[in-house]
Amino acid sequence: ELTMNGGRCSCLRTTDKIVFGPNQLKTIEILPASASCENVEIIVNLKSGRQICLDPNASQIRNIFQQLINSPLETSN
Amino acid sequence: ELTMNGGRCSCLRTTDKIVFGPNQLKTIEILPASASCENVEIIVNLKSGRQICLDPNASQIRNIFQQLINSPLETSN
Repeated sequence: ELTMNGGRCSCLRTTDKIVFGPNQLKTIEILPASASCENVEIIVNLKSGRQICLDPNASQIRNIFQQLINSPLETSN
Repeated sequence: ELTMNGGRCSCLRTTDKIVFGPNQLKTIEILPASASCENVEIIVNLKSGRQICLDPNASQIRNIFQQLINSPLETSN
């Protein structure tokens, strides 16, 4: 998923599907578009250590952000 | 701004004001509400190394997220 070899962008591939549950979520990182990478990149860090790149243009992903930021304590873990 | 001493939440204080320019922005981290911290936390990492916690409930902050994800540099790669 991620390229750590100094490639310009961090994400090789992105997905527009949420393939993890809220309890698996550790952090989400947003890397704004920059000189080194023209895409906004959204990197999900899971508790398992796995990293997933989300497609910021996918409507489902944008909706998730709304829910995430508006979420009262929904997680039951 | 941040507590790294194992306190429950990462953010001691949050701000609802954007006090940095887009080019100062390195990454934004979203920490979902969890058992250890009941707040959604939004941590801005600036290129200067400084970290700022944003208030996820502030409408201005939510708007920023919309703009960030819809940022003009939308290339169709």
